[in-house]
Amino acid sequence: MLSQTTEYALRATICLAYSREGLVSTSDLAEQTKVPMNYLAKVLQLLARSGIVTGRRGVGGGYKLTRPPEQISMLDVINAISPIQRITSCPLELKNHSGALCPLHHKLDESIDILIKHFTGVSMADLLGQRGDSRPLCDEAMTARVELTLGGSN
Amino acid sequence: MLSQTTEYALRATICLAYSREGLVSTSDLAEQTKVPMNYLAKVLQLLARSGIVTGRRGVGGGYKLTRPPEQISMLDVINAISPIQRITSCPLELKNHSGALCPLHHKLDESIDILIKHFTGVSMADLLGQRGDSRPLCDEAMTARVELTLGGSN
Repeated sequence: MLSQTTEYALRATICLAYSREGLVSTSDLAEQTKVPMNYLAKVLQLLARSGIVTGRRGVGGGYKLTRPPEQISMLDVINAISPIQRITSCPLELKNHSGALCPLHHKLDESIDILIKHFTGVSMADLLGQRGDSRPLCDEAMTARVELTLGGSN
Repeated sequence: MLSQTTEYALRATICLAYSREGLVSTSDLAEQTKVPMNYLAKVLQLLARSGIVTGRRGVGGGYKLTRPPEQISMLDVINAISPIQRITSCPLELKNHSGALCPLHHKLDESIDILIKHFTGVSMADLLGQRGDSRPLCDEAMTARVELTLGGSN
């Protein structure tokens, strides 16, 4: 549903939200997010352009969030990479549709609105909080704990 | 959000639902849906493979729905072209995610589930009924009426 680039942007933002202080280097972030470093660098540039992260080049450089995780929604990050667009006129550019969407496009627009509301309601802090003090992206210890909780076989 | 092929499939199914009796030729359907005929032929083959439409070749041939519009959901048509998949394991195939999705993937899966429920709840009949007895896809008369209702400038 979302592009791989958008998912990588979400993973990077979550990791920056988890690392509460100071700058995180692109190489550390690449290791945490499992995203190739060159690819991640481009993603971080898009996030910086949208004012979600700010960075400093050179030795000791890296990136950090520009505001608290509670104030960054999933939609903010998604829209920084490829904005979710409502359907305001016929996507097929049919002249007859321009003045009034047909029922199909009304329903499709409704589904986009539902998604926008869903992603607006989830902050980066929500994505950190769900598993206590564990890393935001799965690690061995956390995975084991969760599998145990879920009655898994590990 | 949906591919163009999926949208074309929805438009074709709606037009077949609107034409309640007999077979509709691919050329008539191409005119009604504004879809190139060769492209539409491939879309109809996919819909037939999923048991949503049935067709007959040759003179007097064409396509029709296999069941009433009330019994065909938007999800049925979408899944006939490119199925909406829930996230049951890490999309990035990270070993550590296999046992338990991280909060991000839980939330992404939640959004997919919301979409599935939305598209399951809308039938082809719903897409016909919203504008009385007009054609399901905008036509001049219907567009004019709706613009008038909406206080449009036409």
